[in-house]
This record gives sequence, C-alpha cells and structure tokens, in this order.
Amino acid sequence: MEICGPRLLTRIAELARVGGLEGGGCCRLALTEADKAGRAQVVAWMRELGMDVRVDALGNTVGRRAGRRDDLPAVMTGSHIDTVRTGGIYDGSLGVLAGLEIIQSLHEAGHQTEHPLEVGFFTNEEGSRFAPDMMGSLVYVGDLAVDAARAAQDAEGVSVGDALDSLGLAGDAPVPGPAPHAFVELHIEQGPVLDREGVDIGVVTAVQGIRWQKLTLTGVSNHAGTSPMSMRADAVYVAARITTMVRELTAEVGAPMVGTVGHMAVRPNLVNVVANHVELTTDLRHVDAAVLVQAEATCNARIAEICAVEGVGLQTERLASFDPFSFDPATVGRVRAAAAARGLSHRDMVSGAGHDAQIHGRVAPAAMVFVPSVGGISHNIEEHTEDHHLVAGAQVLMDVMLGLAS
Amino acid sequence: MEICGPRLLTRIAELARVGGLEGGGCCRLALTEADKAGRAQVVAWMRELGMDVRVDALGNTVGRRAGRRDDLPAVMTGSHIDTVRTGGIYDGSLGVLAGLEIIQSLHEAGHQTEHPLEVGFFTNEEGSRFAPDMMGSLVYVGDLAVDAARAAQDAEGVSVGDALDSLGLAGDAPVPGPAPHAFVELHIEQGPVLDREGVDIGVVTAVQGIRWQKLTLTGVSNHAGTSPMSMRADAVYVAARITTMVRELTAEVGAPMVGTVGHMAVRPNLVNVVANHVELTTDLRHVDAAVLVQAEATCNARIAEICAVEGVGLQTERLASFDPFSFDPATVGRVRAAAAARGLSHRDMVSGAGHDAQIHGRVAPAAMVFVPSVGGISHNIEEHTEDHHLVAGAQVLMDVMLGLAS
Repeated sequence: MEICGPRLLTRIAELARVGGLEGGGCCRLALTEADKAGRAQVVAWMRELGMDVRVDALGNTVGRRAGRRDDLPAVMTGSHIDTVRTGGIYDGSLGVLAGLEIIQSLHEAGHQTEHPLEVGFFTNEEGSRFAPDMMGSLVYVGDLAVDAARAAQDAEGVSVGDALDSLGLAGDAPVPGPAPHAFVELHIEQGPVLDREGVDIGVVTAVQGIRWQKLTLTGVSNHAGTSPMSMRADAVYVAARITTMVRELTAEVGAPMVGTVGHMAVRPNLVNVVANHVELTTDLRHVDAAVLVQAEATCNARIAEICAVEGVGLQTERLASFDPFSFDPATVGRVRAAAAARGLSHRDMVSGAGHDAQIHGRVAPAAMVFVPSVGGISHNIEEHTEDHHLVAGAQVLMDVMLGLAS
Repeated sequence: MEICGPRLLTRIAELARVGGLEGGGCCRLALTEADKAGRAQVVAWMRELGMDVRVDALGNTVGRRAGRRDDLPAVMTGSHIDTVRTGGIYDGSLGVLAGLEIIQSLHEAGHQTEHPLEVGFFTNEEGSRFAPDMMGSLVYVGDLAVDAARAAQDAEGVSVGDALDSLGLAGDAPVPGPAPHAFVELHIEQGPVLDREGVDIGVVTAVQGIRWQKLTLTGVSNHAGTSPMSMRADAVYVAARITTMVRELTAEVGAPMVGTVGHMAVRPNLVNVVANHVELTTDLRHVDAAVLVQAEATCNARIAEICAVEGVGLQTERLASFDPFSFDPATVGRVRAAAAARGLSHRDMVSGAGHDAQIHGRVAPAAMVFVPSVGGISHNIEEHTEDHHLVAGAQVLMDVMLGLAS
C-alpha cells in the first residue's frame, strides 16, 4: 500500500499559503484569523475525503474514517497546524497532511482497516501565543480543564476563551476525547541530527523534559547620565546577567542540556533611561528528569542572587512544565521495523522539542516518526525538509498505522 | 527684585496636568498630541504676559520681552517641555516656567531691562522619540539642518517632519535663530549629588560628553529545544553579553564614567525560539573627551568580538555624539555669585545629563543653575524637587539674568 507523494507535497504547499510570509514560511499563531483559515482548509479536505469531523471545546479537530469494526478504538495520527510567529511550513502541518494523504490512498485502494482511523490537529501546540504549549492535546486527554485552558492569556491580555469565541472555533465534541487504540505522529526533527548523519528516519524513543518560566524584574527607572553606576537597580542589566548565566549553566551541565532566553520585553525601553521593568522567559530542557529539576533549581537560585545584588525585584511564573516522556516500546518497535522494511536508514533518538504525541501517549500507546530538517533549522522561515524525506516519513507512518489498525 | 514662588509652583502643577500620568509624572513625548497641548499652554501664558512669540521650522518657540535698547541681543533663558515616556514634572518645565515667572515679576515691578529678555522651549530635547536629543537647540544654533532634523524617524517610522506637519507645529521664524547676549538655564540636577550633600544650588561648570549608538544584531532563529548550544547564533545572548560588558567597562574606567543599555527589542521574541534579531542601544558618558572616546573604542571592539564568537551579524548606527562642554567661566561666575548673595549653599558641579544650554553655549556665553533632585531620581514619575529649592533656583536665575541684561 503506497501513498501518493506529489499529492502530499501539493497539500503542504497549499496549506503553507495560509498565513504565508514574504520570503517563505508561515505565521499561523494559535487562534488567529490565519489559524482559522488554516483550520477551514484542513476541514474542507477532511470533508472531501468523506471523513466525520468533530471539534471540541478547545477547537481540537479530529477527522474519522470508519473501520470494519467501528466499535473498536481508532488508530489516531495527527499533529498541529499552528505555527510560531515566523515559522516554517512543515512543523506540525506535515503530520496532519500525511494523515489525510494516508486516508485518500486507502480510499483509492479500496482498503478498509479493522480499526477506524483518525487524523487530528490540536490547538496551540506551539505555545507561542498562549502557555502552556501542547494545550489542546492536554485538554483532549483530560489533563487540563477546559476552563483553565480558556483562561490563559496572550501578551495583550486576550484569553484563549475570548479568541475561541470570537473566531467561532469551539465545538461540542466530548472532552476529554476518546482514548485511541494507538497514537502515532509524523514530524520534522527540527534539530540537526538526522541531517548531519544522513539518516532518513528518526525512531523517537523519548522526549526531553521542558521547564518554562516567566520572570518579571522590577528595578528603578532613572536618568542614564546622572545615576552613578553604584546606585542603579537596572532591570535590563539583571536580565542580561540572567541570560548569560543560563548559557553558562548549560555548559556546566553539558549536552543534551539546552537553555534559552527567547523573550525579553523592556520598559520604558529608551536609550537614555535606566529600565525599571523587564519581562523575560527561561526555557530549560533535558531528557533526564532529575538533571532537569536540579538544573532549574540551580538556575533559580542564581537568578535570585543576581536580582538581590542589583536590588531588583523578582516575580516568577511557571508557564509550562513537562517531564521527560518515554514512548511505548512496542509501538516504537513498529516504527523501527517499518523503516527497515522500506529500506530506509534509521536511528533511535530523543526529541528535543515537545510534541502532541507525548501527551496522547499518557492515555494510549504512542510513537513518533521523525524526518530530517536541513541544517537542523526550525521555527524559522528557512525550515526545510527534502521532498523524498517528507514522502518517506508519510509512507512509514502509513505502514505503522495499517499494522496497528489490522 | 523677587519672584513670586507660589505662582511658579502653580504653573508647574498646571503644566504637569498636560500629559499627566496616573500616579504622577508626565508623558509628553516630543511632537505628540500631549506635547502640542503643552506648547499651547505655555504659549498662552507667554501671550498673557504680552510677549512676542516666534516659532521656527522645528517648533522651537521663543517669547520675547522688549528691552530699553531693543536692538541689543537678548538675554535668553529656557529649556524644554518634552518628557521621556514616564517622566517627571520638573525636567525641562522648571526652566521654561521659571523664565515666565521672571517676566511676570518684572512686569509687576515695572522694571524694564536694558537688553531684551527671551524665554524659549526647544523641540525634542529628550531624544526619547527621535535622535539626536537636544535636536531643536541644535537646529536653533545652526549646527543641524532643518531637513536633516525633519528626516529623523521614531521607532514606528514617523519622521519629525511628518509629526511637525500633522500637528501644525512648524512656524516661520528664521533658522538659525539670533544668537543671544547670553543663555542661562535653570534645571533640576537629575542626579543625587546636591540632595546627598544638602546643597541648595549647583553651579554647573561643564556637561559630560555623550555617545549613543544603536546596534542591530542578526543571528539565526531556531527551535529552543532542538538546537544544540554549540550550533546557536543567538541574538538575545549576544545582546546580554554586550549589556554586561558595558557594565564591566564602566567599572574598569571608574566614576564618573556611566554606561547604559536602556533599549532592547527582540524578534521573534518567543519563549521557545532562539531569537534572530535584537536591536539595542548603548549610552556612554564621561566628562573627559579623551576618556570617552577611548571607552567607546574599547566598547565597540568588545562588541565586535562578542558578535564574532557567536556568529551574529552586527550593524552599528550613531544616534548621538556630544563632546563634553565647558560653560563660559564669567557667566558661571555670575551664577556662583548670585547664589552666594542670596545666602544659598552652592557647589560647582558637572552635569551628567545633556542640556539645551550646552548647545546655545556654542554661539553665546552660557551657564546653568541646578537645584536638587530628591534621591537623585529623574526620568521617572517619582522625580521630585522641594518647593523651596524650585523657588530658590528661579530666584538665582532671575538675579543672573538681571545682571546680564543691565
């Protein structure tokens, strides 16, 4: 049973035009007009394929193809179609559109699986606009209440609930959603490993743990010319010290520890005024839960010390916390075997990014298929995966799903 | 000849309501509606006092009171009424409104001076919205062309010319304006020296040199979870290293060197994306021109090295450059003598901030009178000067002007 590669590539290119950026890439931040337009396109394709579409209170959307035994739990695939602000065209979309391609190929081959098949996309996986990331999947599996998710606000104070309601994206499918027979997700690696090693398929055994915090620093705003250095409580300086400390901490712990300050907002943000207010975020990740917890504790102790020395106030808010997650060995084994059977080079690996599959893996056996990202570049309009890798990944996904659904 | 202190304080409070912020302080950024409203208030007072008002192409506004010998050059005082985004109510306004109070007191005493007297306020002294700061005074003395000033843009791309035209603030008075007989400016210290030492009057002998730069850093945006630390070109990290380096540099050079990063803008500015774009500013100041030039050269060499190590691109733009400036010793001596004659404690000092008087001092003998800032706080809504110091400063200014104008 073979997928149709060109058709998959065409759908990827078509969805990429929704929220497309000049020079390439996409901006479909969660629960924006662009996200709504992307949803409408994918749902239209689902309906063209005769799928039953259900939408829950968070806008999580699942298309279903009946099985011979439609009372059996579905074999589910899926991912997300939201992007970061300047994102690529494969992150998330590949997994959703590969699912549609598999459904269409099965239609054309006249093949009905024993289990039903489902293809879903889950709201606000990126977490770029609202925290936590993987929000929709968390609600879908019942680990985040709808009300709590709806209360999350973006930087402008718009809540998930307001955005869902004003865009009309909430549906009435039950929450939590029915646990599938298994969940398998195809995704680009977003890191450099497969590309650097010339490997076709990543067999994902686990996902790094993630800790996000928002830090709010309160100093004293003052004149940049008349305030002696010794009398300053400079929030930008403290934010800078925290940022360099995070880099030093990752060096102390060593790979695969990563740490990032990606967000920093300064007030009053003027050349000649010592800033009294900075908001910044820390993103720490490691595959070992104990190492990650220790690293964050060290990080926070140093942050407190840096603030105290400068006399700058500190407020800390937890944005997201995901423990490292290990996928189901049997399902992972199916991915490994499928890649091998297709003659594709493959390797086991740990995901550096969080993915919907790790959330669905809490309620069902789960696994992931990775394909290479050229140069390891992602969350960037330059994000690229070669066509033959996109198609190979979708084919492996199909093979695994057929095995699970038979 | 005595000023009327309560009337001065009333005018300060009235002008403070224009662009007043909740909790105190003012926001009258240059060439905004609030600035326009402030100008209208001050011009209305000038006209009530029977002054001839002239406005030039940059919106610099000068009110004139005739002298017995009206062909003689005027003794000028003045300052600015624009503020930083969260500014105090005394910075700039004090100097302008003290000038008006002196005019009114002379009217009431029926005293006409030999030289005419002029009270001016000059556009965009703060430089918070448009660079360079002290823009209006530079145009007034002929050291900045009107077209060059009009071309300066704010962060949103609005030019000085567009703002002047849309607000209708440009006039037809000649540029450069006529050089005065002398220029004396009253201003709050904006630093902690007078307050800490319990001194009433600062006799300003010189102003620190100022160097402003805008740095644009270009890294590679990437996924915060999947990009190994060793492969990053992180613009936020580089901005942080530059910020901590500036602080270290000020410690190496030692007081009175000051250095500030007050502005930092990050793109895409998301928790989980390594940032590829940061704009930041450096503000370096020292009273010794040679030390300042050497410090900036060291700073820039280190910036280049920090960028090179991380593989981040750098563009540098000069925003402002003012050499240290020494006021006219004879005019400074008049300030010292006036303070002493009034029985006020006083000390010679160097200004950490730039002021209009240093620009007018290029074409005329100039001096400044400082009054204490409580806690040295300025560019902050908490900026405060005690009433008796405001009045004492205005009285010294009057005494100096009468001496110059006789």
